[in-house]
Amino acid sequence: MTVICDTALTQMLGMTRPIMSAPMAGVSGGALAAAVSSAGGFGLIGGGYGDRAWLSRQLDIAQDSRIGVGFITWALAANADLLPMTIERKPKAIFLSFGDIGPYAPLIHRAGVPLIAQVQTVSAAKDAAAKGAQIIVAQGSEAGGHGGARGTMALVPAVVDAVGDIPVIAAGGIADGRGLAAALMLGAQGVLCGTVFYAAHESLAHTRAKDVATKALGDHTVRGSLFDSVRGHDWPEQWQLRSLENELYRNWARDPESVKAQSADFRSRYADAEASGDASIMAVIVGEAIDLVLQIEPASDIVERMATQAAARLRLFTRA
Amino acid sequence: MTVICDTALTQMLGMTRPIMSAPMAGVSGGALAAAVSSAGGFGLIGGGYGDRAWLSRQLDIAQDSRIGVGFITWALAANADLLPMTIERKPKAIFLSFGDIGPYAPLIHRAGVPLIAQVQTVSAAKDAAAKGAQIIVAQGSEAGGHGGARGTMALVPAVVDAVGDIPVIAAGGIADGRGLAAALMLGAQGVLCGTVFYAAHESLAHTRAKDVATKALGDHTVRGSLFDSVRGHDWPEQWQLRSLENELYRNWARDPESVKAQSADFRSRYADAEASGDASIMAVIVGEAIDLVLQIEPASDIVERMATQAAARLRLFTRA
Repeated sequence: MTVICDTALTQMLGMTRPIMSAPMAGVSGGALAAAVSSAGGFGLIGGGYGDRAWLSRQLDIAQDSRIGVGFITWALAANADLLPMTIERKPKAIFLSFGDIGPYAPLIHRAGVPLIAQVQTVSAAKDAAAKGAQIIVAQGSEAGGHGGARGTMALVPAVVDAVGDIPVIAAGGIADGRGLAAALMLGAQGVLCGTVFYAAHESLAHTRAKDVATKALGDHTVRGSLFDSVRGHDWPEQWQLRSLENELYRNWARDPESVKAQSADFRSRYADAEASGDASIMAVIVGEAIDLVLQIEPASDIVERMATQAAARLRLFTRA
Repeated sequence: MTVICDTALTQMLGMTRPIMSAPMAGVSGGALAAAVSSAGGFGLIGGGYGDRAWLSRQLDIAQDSRIGVGFITWALAANADLLPMTIERKPKAIFLSFGDIGPYAPLIHRAGVPLIAQVQTVSAAKDAAAKGAQIIVAQGSEAGGHGGARGTMALVPAVVDAVGDIPVIAAGGIADGRGLAAALMLGAQGVLCGTVFYAAHESLAHTRAKDVATKALGDHTVRGSLFDSVRGHDWPEQWQLRSLENELYRNWARDPESVKAQSADFRSRYADAEASGDASIMAVIVGEAIDLVLQIEPASDIVERMATQAAARLRLFTRA
C-alpha cells in the first residue's frame, strides 16, 4: 500500500489510510471523528454554524485523538472567537469550506495547524492555493450537504492540474473502495466521505434517519435551498444543499414565498421532526453515493472495507 | 493491457482500446467515428434528430469502418424508417439515449446488432437491462450535450451493481487517461467521451467553436434548456443541455417567455451564428471535462494518449 499510504497528505495528517470523514454539522461529533482516525483515516468534527458548547463537548469526547475540526467559512464571521478557541484545543487540522479562507489563514498558519480548504470550482482551488491552503478538497456536486455544481469526475483532475504540489483530496459520490481507487487514478491523494459515515454507528444522525438512508436510492436526492430556508440558515446562493427528497421537499420546494411567509411555523415543525427523526419532514442529508450504503456499522469497519476494496481493485489492474 | 482490453465489451465491439466517441449530433460524422475505431476504440455517428440525408452521407464517409450509430430515442418516434434504414447499412452497434428503448429493441435484436443504451439514472439502467440493452452507458451530468442530473462518480458503481453481467461504460467528465483509469476502478469496462472528441480534427464542429472549446474552463459550463428553445427542439424536461455559458445564455436563460415570443427571430439569428461559428450566440456543446482539452488534434492521438496515460496510472499503483 506504499503509493496509497505514504504521500504528502498521509504524512501531514498521520494517516495510514487515505480516508477522511467529512465534518457534517450536527452529525460528525467527537466519537465519529476519533473512530475514523483510530482506524487509520482522519476524522473531522463538524463545527457547523458555530455552536460553541456543542463543539467543546465533542472535542472533549474526542480527547487527544488525532482529529481535525471543520467550519462553514462564511459562518465564522459571526463567531469571532470560535477559531481561536478551537486552535487552543490543538486539533491536527482545521478544515474550511464555503467562503474565503483569506481572513482566517494567517491565524491557522501561526498556530502551525495544517489548513485544509474545500472548494467546488477550479477557480476557488487556485484562490485557496494562493491564500495558503496546505491541502485542498475538491468537492463534487454528488456530495450530500452543501456543495457546488461541478461533478467530481472532471473537477478532481482539473484541480490537481491547477494547484501544483498541494495534495488534493476527492469528495462527492465516494462511498466504497471503488470510489477510493478511482479518486487515486484521478490524481487525488485521498478521499473525504460524508454519506457513508452518516450511517456509521458513531454518527450523531438520528437512528430513524440512518435507517432511511441505508434504504434510499441515489436517484432520489435533490439539491436546493428549501431546508436551509426552513431552518433559518442564510446560505449564499452558490452553495445548495443535497439531501434525500421527502414529503416536505415535494410539497414546498417550488413555493419559497409561502415558506418565508410562514417561517416560524415551518421552523418549529422542522425542529420537532428533527427531534423525533421524522424523515418525511427533516432532511436526511446524504449524497448520491447513498446507493452504495447498505447498513449501519462501525466507522472502523467502513474505513477497513474501503481500504481493502481499493487495494483489491488496484491489484486487479496490475495485470493491465 | 489484458484486463482493460479483453472484456465482454471489447469483444462485442471489436475494440483494442476501451474508448468510445459519443454520437454528438452534427459533430460526430463518419470521419470522426472511423478515426476513433481505426485507433482501436469505437466511434459512433450522431444520428441526432433524424436528418436522413446527413446520416446517409456520414455512413458513406465511414465506408465499411467498424462504427456504430447513435440516436435520440424520443426523436425516433417521428422518423419511423430511420432505424430500419440505418440497420440496412450494417452498423456494428446501435446506440439509443433519452427515452424508452422498448419499442426499438426487438428490431435491433432481430438484426443481430449490439444494442447500447445510455442512461442517466439507476432506475433507467434497470429498465434498459430488462428491455434488452446489451451494453449500458452510465452518463453523468458532467457530460456535454443532453444529460440528467446524477454525477458520474456515484452513478457508475451503482449502475454496475444494478445490471448484473451487462457491461457498463462510464460517460461524463472523462477526457484523459486519468478518467479512463478511474472509470475502470468504478467497475466500468470502458468510457464514452464527447468533449475531447468535439475538439478533434475530424469533428464537424465549427473551427471557431473548437478554438473556443480548447481555451474554455470547466467552471463555465451551464445546464439548461435555452439553446433547445432557440433551436426549436422540444426536449423532455428531465434532460437538459450542458454547454459553455455565452452571451446569449447570460442574456436570455432567465427569460424563456421572451425567447418563446420571438422564436422566429432567435432561430434565424442562431442559424446565422452556427454558420459563422459565432460562439457568443451558438452553443459550444462541451462538458465539464473541457479543462482537460487543450488542443485540436487527430482523434487517433486522443485515443492513443488516453490509453497510454491510463496504463501508466494503473502501473503506478501496481506497487500499492
